[in-house]
Amino acid sequence: MKSQTDYVWFEVPSRRGFVNITDTVEGLVKKSGVQEGLCLVNAMHITSAVFINDNEDGLLHDFDHWLEKLAPHEPVSQYHHNRTGEDNADAHLKRQVMGREVVVAITKGKLDFGPWEQIFYGEFDGRRRKRALVKIIGE
Amino acid sequence: MKSQTDYVWFEVPSRRGFVNITDTVEGLVKKSGVQEGLCLVNAMHITSAVFINDNEDGLLHDFDHWLEKLAPHEPVSQYHHNRTGEDNADAHLKRQVMGREVVVAITKGKLDFGPWEQIFYGEFDGRRRKRALVKIIGE
Amino acid sequence: MKSQTDYVWFEVPSRRGFVNITDTVEGLVKKSGVQEGLCLVNAMHITSAVFINDNEDGLLHDFDHWLEKLAPHEPVSQYHHNRTGEDNADAHLKRQVMGREVVVAITKGKLDFGPWEQIFYGEFDGRRRKRALVKIIGE
Repeated sequence: MKSQTDYVWFEVPSRRGFVNITDTVEGLVKKSGVQEGLCLVNAMHITSAVFINDNEDGLLHDFDHWLEKLAPHEPVSQYHHNRTGEDNADAHLKRQVMGREVVVAITKGKLDFGPWEQIFYGEFDGRRRKRALVKIIGE
Repeated sequence: MKSQTDYVWFEVPSRRGFVNITDTVEGLVKKSGVQEGLCLVNAMHITSAVFINDNEDGLLHDFDHWLEKLAPHEPVSQYHHNRTGEDNADAHLKRQVMGREVVVAITKGKLDFGPWEQIFYGEFDGRRRKRALVKIIGE
Repeated sequence: MKSQTDYVWFEVPSRRGFVNITDTVEGLVKKSGVQEGLCLVNAMHITSAVFINDNEDGLLHDFDHWLEKLAPHEPVSQYHHNRTGEDNADAHLKRQVMGREVVVAITKGKLDFGPWEQIFYGEFDGRRRKRALVKIIGE
C-alpha cells in the first residue's frame, strides 16, 4: 500500500469565499502514482469546508446566500460561542452544512469523477492562512 | 490490497425520489471478496446524494418535505444558477444537506452496519440516467 | 495492509447531547500500530451523528439550538415518521445536517488534525445504549 500526505494552504481575502481545488488535487493524485485507491480531502480548520459541487458562479453565489439564511452571521450576539470574543459561530455552523471532507475514488490513476464534479474549499472565516489535507492511499 | 470499482445506474421517473441501494452494495462487497476494508458509495452527479438512514416511507416523505422547506424549488428565479437556463439550483443545495457520499466499514466480508442502517440514493433532479460509484478497497 | 475494528458505546442520559470522543479514537489509532492510513468513525444508529468541530461549550449549545430551529422536535405530529409510534423523526433529520461519519487521515501514527479539530458523537435520541464504529486501515 502506498500513501501520500500533502497540505494545501489558502488565504481567502474576504470572510467568505470558494476556491476550486480540483486541479491541485488531481496533480497530487498523479504525483502519488496510485492507480487504485482513495483520496481524502478535508479542511483542517473548523470554520472551513471541503465539498464537491458545480463550478458555476451563479451557484456559488446561491450557496453563499443560502448558508447566510440558514446560519446568519449577524447579529453575532445570537450565538453563545461569540461570548468567547469570537464572531465566527456562524462559520462553524455553515461548515456542517457543506461538510468537512470528501472521499474520492482513484481509478486508473485519476479522480473517478462524474461529468460535473469539482472539489471546492469553502471558507467561512477567512482573511488568514488556513490548510486543507490531501491524503492518498492505494496501489 | 484488493480494489473493485462499479457504477450503478438510476433513472428516477420524477424530479425527486429515494432508492434503497443496500442490497446492491452488499452484493458488490460479496463479489469483491474483501474481508476487511472500506466501501465508498458516492453520487457521480451534483444534484444527487448518497446517504444512510432509515428505510421507512414516512421518514422518506419527511426528508422530501423538509428539504423543500430548507431549499425550495420555486420560485426558480430566486437562484442565480437558474439564470443559466437550468431550473435545478435547489437540487444542488438539497444534495449538500443529505451528502454526496458514505464510507462504510467492511468487517468479516460484510457491510458493518448498525441495526437500521440502509444506504439510499437521493435524487433531486431526476427523469434522466445518472450514476453512483461503489469503490471497495481492502484485503 | 492492517485493519482494526472497534465499537464504542454511549448512553447519553438526555434526549440530545454531545460527547467528545477524540481521546478514545486517538487511543484506538495508537493501539492499531498503523502509521499511515485512514480512520473511519461513524454512528451505527440513524438518529446519531459523528462530526468534527470545536470543543467549546457555547458552540455546542449553539449547535443544539440551531438544529432545533432547522428540524424542531415539536410538534411531533408534523412528521409522518412519528405516525409509526416513534417521536424521533427530528433526530433523523438533525443527524443529516451534522453527518453520519468522519474519515480522518493517520500520519506518522497519529490523527492528522488541524489545531482545533475534535471528534464528537452527537446524540439526538438518547436515553439508551448506542454505538459508534471506529475502523482503521493502513500500514
